[in-house]
Amino acid sequence: MDFEQIAQNAKTACLDMAEVTTDVKNNALLAIADELEKHAKEIFEANKIDLEQARDIVSPSVFNRLKLDENKMRDMIQGIRDVVNLPEPIGKTLLARQLDDGLNLYKISCPIGVLGIIFEARPDVIAQISSLAIKSSNTVILKGGKESINTNKTILSVINNALEQVKDFPKNVVQQVFTHEEVAEMLECDKYIDLIIPRGSNKLVKYIKENTKIPVLGHADGICHIFLDKNADFEKAKNIIIDSKTQYPSACNAVETLLIHKNFEQTEELLKSLENAGITLISNPETWAFEHGDKTLAYKIVENIEEAITHINTYGSGHTDCIITEDEENAEKFMQKVDSAGVYHNVSTRFADGFRYGFGAEVGISTNKTHARGPVGLEGLTIYKYKLIGNGHIVKDYVEGKKQFNHKDL
Amino acid sequence: MDFEQIAQNAKTACLDMAEVTTDVKNNALLAIADELEKHAKEIFEANKIDLEQARDIVSPSVFNRLKLDENKMRDMIQGIRDVVNLPEPIGKTLLARQLDDGLNLYKISCPIGVLGIIFEARPDVIAQISSLAIKSSNTVILKGGKESINTNKTILSVINNALEQVKDFPKNVVQQVFTHEEVAEMLECDKYIDLIIPRGSNKLVKYIKENTKIPVLGHADGICHIFLDKNADFEKAKNIIIDSKTQYPSACNAVETLLIHKNFEQTEELLKSLENAGITLISNPETWAFEHGDKTLAYKIVENIEEAITHINTYGSGHTDCIITEDEENAEKFMQKVDSAGVYHNVSTRFADGFRYGFGAEVGISTNKTHARGPVGLEGLTIYKYKLIGNGHIVKDYVEGKKQFNHKDL
Repeated sequence: MDFEQIAQNAKTACLDMAEVTTDVKNNALLAIADELEKHAKEIFEANKIDLEQARDIVSPSVFNRLKLDENKMRDMIQGIRDVVNLPEPIGKTLLARQLDDGLNLYKISCPIGVLGIIFEARPDVIAQISSLAIKSSNTVILKGGKESINTNKTILSVINNALEQVKDFPKNVVQQVFTHEEVAEMLECDKYIDLIIPRGSNKLVKYIKENTKIPVLGHADGICHIFLDKNADFEKAKNIIIDSKTQYPSACNAVETLLIHKNFEQTEELLKSLENAGITLISNPETWAFEHGDKTLAYKIVENIEEAITHINTYGSGHTDCIITEDEENAEKFMQKVDSAGVYHNVSTRFADGFRYGFGAEVGISTNKTHARGPVGLEGLTIYKYKLIGNGHIVKDYVEGKKQFNHKDL
Repeated sequence: MDFEQIAQNAKTACLDMAEVTTDVKNNALLAIADELEKHAKEIFEANKIDLEQARDIVSPSVFNRLKLDENKMRDMIQGIRDVVNLPEPIGKTLLARQLDDGLNLYKISCPIGVLGIIFEARPDVIAQISSLAIKSSNTVILKGGKESINTNKTILSVINNALEQVKDFPKNVVQQVFTHEEVAEMLECDKYIDLIIPRGSNKLVKYIKENTKIPVLGHADGICHIFLDKNADFEKAKNIIIDSKTQYPSACNAVETLLIHKNFEQTEELLKSLENAGITLISNPETWAFEHGDKTLAYKIVENIEEAITHINTYGSGHTDCIITEDEENAEKFMQKVDSAGVYHNVSTRFADGFRYGFGAEVGISTNKTHARGPVGLEGLTIYKYKLIGNGHIVKDYVEGKKQFNHKDL
């Protein structure tokens, strides 16, 4: 099937999804979870083939993400069942307003439409994103990396076998494509695809953002900062910085740059503690706009909070930035003027995460300035439409002053 | 000044705007309104020069939009004063949640950042968009059409003179550029510009959408439909169709295509009434995806509601589409399955408008599937950031099970 046909099928499936009830969607999710459980062995076998082919080609970290073990499978299946328990995101009344007698306006949440998902390595992304898409009545076209092609194909066929057995569930809600050419076609296909969600390396996300006019939900870099104010508490500072850097150094919400107020009195002692915790400190990085992804931490002494804020707004990626201070006024100023999705006071940057925020599921983390910003839950896969219901109302009457709007919220 | 410098100044001004209070913003708006009133004569004179140069070059409709008369000036100034009375859109708490003892998350509305406004003909767009931008703490770079260059320059200089006198109001909040080259630079400048808002012809909007990766808020086409179901009320149908087509035929929310159920019994009588109201009916348009912009109405007899829905989802522009029916079930089905920003039942399509919806002001009408859809009010110029405030909280404690999240909404 050519890509245009796949995309058109996804669009048609969207319109069918408009009539699918919450129960049917939840049945579909439970069916997927059950079938994945039943076919775990097949999936592990497919994964083994991918792993063998990848062993000498990919980096150890990619190899680890590629590998599906019992734990990851259990988490993946539990993740789908958790989505069942999330509240229905579609059909919510966001506004109900009488415009005039018998003329009522409703703003109702609805799905975005067709999501194009481009991911690398991690085959568990298929189940995660597909379940979020189903819950929010969107349809998806998935394109995984070629390193996990056998695993991806097997998981998708299990998912689609499960969906076929669900009463009243439409066809073509979850589809997959495989080639580089199809990625190019997906990025061009703004006629049918409403949102692209990339999951993978900074390089992948950058490439996608630079090569499509379709909205992209995600982030390329995660260049997070901590600013240590002059009257920061030493113990808090030490613990927060060590956690932000070492708890999971390759995460996008790990800290990359530490800015220290010149009048903070225990700088030397602090830097020593960081080194003792296994952190490699550098004071002259090639560029401040850099995501190390390991235990390297760049640091800089700054004159004042203004310099820190300007540094962050210049070199940061708008992801998550933190001030450590006992001065409430400075904390408020920092959180006001730093233009990032997350602005933190006296906590680890590693909290930037949909599950930790209590969203129940995470689509990804966005550094966009429109639609959805920060950790994105199910709500980020929805938009709204306006329903206007009247009884023969025409605009001429209002323009000519025969009738007046009353605009009463219902 | 080169464009990069202008854009960078706009970004810096954004950060300054973060600290500007509601009172200062409202003072700025009132100062602009007062100064425009005082300098009305200068503006009319500048407009006269533009009109004389444009007289033999532009179409009558562009000439009309270009012309600033006493009425338009009064409306423009009143529009700015109306924005003063709108509720503050920035700093609203959209979510407040305790993640754990002493660890609180707040989702707070904030400005998007730098808006690039590209408009044609209508010089009153400057005052309208600038006042909305100021109220929502965004900054703007405006580029008007060359046909209104004298009027634009005069209005902008009045605005900036007014702003200079406002205590605590930052510089560079409202800037203007003039050349085609600067439009190209604006569309490339995703480093500093967060949102492009085009106001003008379909051609302009299409050009912009095709030539930038920055999010664009707006719509190119307004191809609106009315579906006349078999048991529609004749009088309602006649009035609604005539209003939707003739009340203001060049508006984007005017109807372009009428779909009539084959079993509607008074089709002939209805078509005659429409012709009597000055509507030109055509049954064989070159394409169904066409915005006539005049009193031409394409019509088609359809087999059933499904054909109508498919037609609309295929040829429509996702703007506003209406069903006329006395059958509640069909109305619900239509509003559910038609994938448009506005789905209407028994009312004129001309109601699709921010003022009629009670938003108090309108940024524009969007056919996007992300961020803002339909008539967009002040809220469409806002996004949010997450503030997380703790007391030394680190992620390690939660990963190792020493602490648990409690996720209580505050």
